[in-house]
Amino acid sequence: MGNVFGEQFRIATWGESHGGGVGVVIDGCPARTPIDLDQIQHELDRRRPGQSRLVTQRDEHDRVEILSGVVDSRASGAPIAMLVRNKDARSGAYDHLRDLYRPSHADFTYDAKYGIRSIAGGGRSSARETIGRVAGGAVAMSVLKHLSEALTLPVPEIVSWVDSVIDIEAEVDETRVARADVESHDTRCPDPDAAARMTEAIENARRDGDSLGGTVRAVVRNMPTGWGEPVFDRLEADLAKAMLSLPATKGFEIGSGFAGSRMTGRAHNDPFIPSADGPVTATNHSGGVQGGISNGADLRFRVAFKPTATISSPQQTVTTDGTATTLAAKGRHDPCVLPRAVPMVDAMVALVLVDHQLRQLPNTLLP
Amino acid sequence: MGNVFGEQFRIATWGESHGGGVGVVIDGCPARTPIDLDQIQHELDRRRPGQSRLVTQRDEHDRVEILSGVVDSRASGAPIAMLVRNKDARSGAYDHLRDLYRPSHADFTYDAKYGIRSIAGGGRSSARETIGRVAGGAVAMSVLKHLSEALTLPVPEIVSWVDSVIDIEAEVDETRVARADVESHDTRCPDPDAAARMTEAIENARRDGDSLGGTVRAVVRNMPTGWGEPVFDRLEADLAKAMLSLPATKGFEIGSGFAGSRMTGRAHNDPFIPSADGPVTATNHSGGVQGGISNGADLRFRVAFKPTATISSPQQTVTTDGTATTLAAKGRHDPCVLPRAVPMVDAMVALVLVDHQLRQLPNTLLP
Amino acid sequence: MGNVFGEQFRIATWGESHGGGVGVVIDGCPARTPIDLDQIQHELDRRRPGQSRLVTQRDEHDRVEILSGVVDSRASGAPIAMLVRNKDARSGAYDHLRDLYRPSHADFTYDAKYGIRSIAGGGRSSARETIGRVAGGAVAMSVLKHLSEALTLPVPEIVSWVDSVIDIEAEVDETRVARADVESHDTRCPDPDAAARMTEAIENARRDGDSLGGTVRAVVRNMPTGWGEPVFDRLEADLAKAMLSLPATKGFEIGSGFAGSRMTGRAHNDPFIPSADGPVTATNHSGGVQGGISNGADLRFRVAFKPTATISSPQQTVTTDGTATTLAAKGRHDPCVLPRAVPMVDAMVALVLVDHQLRQLPNTLLP
Amino acid sequence: MGNVFGEQFRIATWGESHGGGVGVVIDGCPARTPIDLDQIQHELDRRRPGQSRLVTQRDEHDRVEILSGVVDSRASGAPIAMLVRNKDARSGAYDHLRDLYRPSHADFTYDAKYGIRSIAGGGRSSARETIGRVAGGAVAMSVLKHLSEALTLPVPEIVSWVDSVIDIEAEVDETRVARADVESHDTRCPDPDAAARMTEAIENARRDGDSLGGTVRAVVRNMPTGWGEPVFDRLEADLAKAMLSLPATKGFEIGSGFAGSRMTGRAHNDPFIPSADGPVTATNHSGGVQGGISNGADLRFRVAFKPTATISSPQQTVTTDGTATTLAAKGRHDPCVLPRAVPMVDAMVALVLVDHQLRQLPNTLLP
Repeated sequence: MGNVFGEQFRIATWGESHGGGVGVVIDGCPARTPIDLDQIQHELDRRRPGQSRLVTQRDEHDRVEILSGVVDSRASGAPIAMLVRNKDARSGAYDHLRDLYRPSHADFTYDAKYGIRSIAGGGRSSARETIGRVAGGAVAMSVLKHLSEALTLPVPEIVSWVDSVIDIEAEVDETRVARADVESHDTRCPDPDAAARMTEAIENARRDGDSLGGTVRAVVRNMPTGWGEPVFDRLEADLAKAMLSLPATKGFEIGSGFAGSRMTGRAHNDPFIPSADGPVTATNHSGGVQGGISNGADLRFRVAFKPTATISSPQQTVTTDGTATTLAAKGRHDPCVLPRAVPMVDAMVALVLVDHQLRQLPNTLLP
Repeated sequence: MGNVFGEQFRIATWGESHGGGVGVVIDGCPARTPIDLDQIQHELDRRRPGQSRLVTQRDEHDRVEILSGVVDSRASGAPIAMLVRNKDARSGAYDHLRDLYRPSHADFTYDAKYGIRSIAGGGRSSARETIGRVAGGAVAMSVLKHLSEALTLPVPEIVSWVDSVIDIEAEVDETRVARADVESHDTRCPDPDAAARMTEAIENARRDGDSLGGTVRAVVRNMPTGWGEPVFDRLEADLAKAMLSLPATKGFEIGSGFAGSRMTGRAHNDPFIPSADGPVTATNHSGGVQGGISNGADLRFRVAFKPTATISSPQQTVTTDGTATTLAAKGRHDPCVLPRAVPMVDAMVALVLVDHQLRQLPNTLLP
Repeated sequence: MGNVFGEQFRIATWGESHGGGVGVVIDGCPARTPIDLDQIQHELDRRRPGQSRLVTQRDEHDRVEILSGVVDSRASGAPIAMLVRNKDARSGAYDHLRDLYRPSHADFTYDAKYGIRSIAGGGRSSARETIGRVAGGAVAMSVLKHLSEALTLPVPEIVSWVDSVIDIEAEVDETRVARADVESHDTRCPDPDAAARMTEAIENARRDGDSLGGTVRAVVRNMPTGWGEPVFDRLEADLAKAMLSLPATKGFEIGSGFAGSRMTGRAHNDPFIPSADGPVTATNHSGGVQGGISNGADLRFRVAFKPTATISSPQQTVTTDGTATTLAAKGRHDPCVLPRAVPMVDAMVALVLVDHQLRQLPNTLLP
Repeated sequence: MGNVFGEQFRIATWGESHGGGVGVVIDGCPARTPIDLDQIQHELDRRRPGQSRLVTQRDEHDRVEILSGVVDSRASGAPIAMLVRNKDARSGAYDHLRDLYRPSHADFTYDAKYGIRSIAGGGRSSARETIGRVAGGAVAMSVLKHLSEALTLPVPEIVSWVDSVIDIEAEVDETRVARADVESHDTRCPDPDAAARMTEAIENARRDGDSLGGTVRAVVRNMPTGWGEPVFDRLEADLAKAMLSLPATKGFEIGSGFAGSRMTGRAHNDPFIPSADGPVTATNHSGGVQGGISNGADLRFRVAFKPTATISSPQQTVTTDGTATTLAAKGRHDPCVLPRAVPMVDAMVALVLVDHQLRQLPNTLLP
């Protein structure tokens, strides 16, 4: 259980790092939504390992196949199933991991929960699991765009980027940063100076057999008002769940976030001011949501990622039969997941937004 | 939509600050769970306004009535409905708010979403909404206790407390702090020195017509392994959603959280060491979850609350027809929600844990 | 579990024949739907015992109270909670039933499932449980009406009636029968001749300490095309579930139903013919659904109800400790549930239709 | 929407008669359930066209591939994805159907609902859709078996068979009929005499360009008590939904069914009698459920299937632009779906039972 996300635009993801492949089934894509295989593949390529020297060098082509639900490049109303075959199966490469628990990985907890475990590549806990999310998110982006256009509303623009790697923090103008800026650097940090320092830190970590944490920041501009379903499915609650469901995440904050907890109400409240489009807020400590519902201001939030658990330095651990041992990891690994996390964040944001876009529809109909 | 929480222990809450009352319907309470009206009332009393001079002075008795689902003080298997009547209705007290949008409240977004609004007391966006959650959480605590005992497992112990108010931070030994320590202070901060300073800050804020943000920290000891449902319903993802669904929350972090994003893998990874109970971690940066599943270590997380939006200083805002105006709030308000937030956090944690306790059951049965 | 019905217009019902009351919480009622307390009460009065000499003579007033979710007689977007207090509690009246299992009642299965049982009045298995459904269905009828009008579509017209009591079968023109015709007879059979014979049979059964089964037939005219969600949530599948979830039901058939299983394709297929409104079918063996989706023809279906399990003749049974005994029921009972079943069927149909009306919305938006 | 079935053992099916294939994703299979590819393939072979001269002669091999969720022939706890590739694509064969609506097919309603349609082979409304269900049902059967054994309970035995074809009715001893009896005839009717007459009728219909309706009857022996979740997810309600979600079904009845509506309570009530295993019923008009919960007696129900809509006689219909025309179907078709419907019914029963088996677990734990 737990592999379905969304209420009205619903994805069921499946697949592990070993086995036949990974994929997603989308139920609830509005009929006639344009489905562009190239756009889906493009999003998958963004999350793929081996894009740059900064990320893991495994060669995964991750070609997506649409198995159902699309007729003449449009959603038919039937479930959209997508499949990416696994290639790099060499499960022998994982034999040395069979009898021990890697620190801060899911080896131990999967064993404790299921009493059975896919050793190769981490199984379902592998980041490869996110392929289904990214493919689903790409379709969600198309729904978001075409539904907004059909309702003659601005199309929400989702932009996520690497905001920090360890203590290196980017300075980015949230009101202007575009996806092209993000994509112009291997780090997916649109601040060139910070990006250069992040690159150096990541390469040093790789050489040193270590790994680095960081944060992703996201903004959604052109947000409509009225998205979010109190009291439990508040927009920020669904975003928080979406983000904390991504591998390696440890925190989420929206608007003022933890810094807001150190403020007083007089400083924190966002005054309303008149505008041609109705009331807008002079500041945005709320991060675009009030009472769980979007207020039309930009959504602004930040996600914390821990350093990759796989490091090549020797580590203390225990075997599956409970004996102390030392693990010296072999092989390629990603010293910093942040650049590849950006398209995952984009995808999850799109999934949350489309779901709430659809859920708000009934409230717009009656006089 | 959005007023149901949980998959297998499911609560549907309802009710506003005005109208007939507030309440909850619980579906999925295991048959024969002991239901103790006094314990439920006790949890409700903890969240009630007017408990101390630190919180709002309205007199709400909030007596809960169990309407169904209980026979001889045990759950009958039928839905458990609970009702708390509203008393303090005086909706005239809110007339001056009818035609404007209070900054950083949900007035504007409810209007934008629903095109209709309960003026009195904030309606569904009032913290009074949380009564249903707290009543549901009290029943969840009973399930957690009795189900663990029936399975001869330790009973998870949930302790939440006020960790900071603005820049005043508590020092608390997470491995020992008990609910009695928390309850021994009006602030619900178990560090007496910090509690004294928080009290002073809150009273100053009240005098000054201002309000204060802060954080709640929570720990769950005696956690079993194996709770959490990858990939979307990870334990931390459901906790994040639960916390961000509470009014006034702006952030959530588990284990190392945002600080973890500044660390390297070598420092962050939690080494496994042998123990009589199987592998345990030497450190707990993970916060008790790995791969979305509890690893038996204490759950540790923190929640950010913004300062209360209601302040009595004059504020810039707009009327419902879009004209700039100034709001000078009247009446009683809570200058700091943190002390009352503690039982709400406890309740939501209990709801998440019971749901995952039940969801893990099928995995324990086959050889 | 199992007390929630619907995906997008969702009711959670609660309550037993004993205890504080019975009720419903509606989540997902579109904002600004007119909510008419009198209309809700009217539907409840239709299902109430004691309306006529044909049904049980207990005096239950069943006054409904709306506790939340309504502002100025319109849905506010928040959950709508409704409560009907229990009155006639006299649980002593049930003492003689405490230690035995009434045949064809739920006494034994509730004990087997929950290990605990509400003796008084059958608890949750009492037909009193349906009050929440009928109240929810009344709101669904309002959504159906106002949403259709807002979309300038005809309003689906739901008419159910008593089609047979034992072997007495009504002859009714399905294309014309109106709710007023149904309500004009105590039996809720709009064929006066059959109604008279049914009345006689029911009175004979009462005198004789026996009870009678029968069928309810329903038609929905002015159906739009396109409602129903293949492959599992076909319109007829959701109707079947709705009907079989009602107490005492044993069967459901749509269109040609079981008779259709004796036909050949040449006779059964519904030829399409042109019309000003697009293709229509010359016959309606399909019962208004093809491939799980409404085709614009009238929905036509039939529901079988078993004879009431409570009879006053002596019956063979066993005690709760497994000894053979004889039950001689006392007190008032309903010798035929059919007349009171009609408003329950109406309510469930309305709930199913509104849910599918809302679910079809996203498919209507894109060019 | 609508392509997910089940609450705790949840299948999401996808795929059409054209395109890359059809399949299923199972979420909620208890960890360590034995997964036997041969058993799954065996169930798929039972539903496959071309098994005998009685059913359609298309050659579909329908080899299933397990893509994920299985390690060492056991469920790993991760989603189980299964894929069957499409082969017989020749969509040109359907060109003559592109511009008209086949009577009593879903062509018109899919167009009306989605505004877009997969012409080839009926798309999602094809019976090929049921492959995912049958594969999911095969896994459900394994859960049912191994979970019952683990709990040292008898394993429920599901047996379905063709009970009638038009007016030819089988006589079968429900208390003894076994799956081997059913499989011993091409018709899947275990009454040899009726089977012979059905065979003749089906062959005549094929020659005559016509098709035949019929019924499937099912029994589940070794039923435990306590399965079924009042009030909406009654066991019979979920069975009714499952059956009416199958293509071509028009009716469902359990126990006495529609015949029960013609009975009196004195004849219909099932007296309890003592037994070594607790109370049992002397008769079984209830069909194994009382109050929505299994009472330990055999589940007994019947499903009506309409005659196949595809016939080769000329039929009156309209074109997609609304002009009257005549359809003369070409090619192979199945004159009677009943034999192939049997494994579909078996699968859906298994899915419903496992779901309720899992849902009942929490009620068994507390003292």
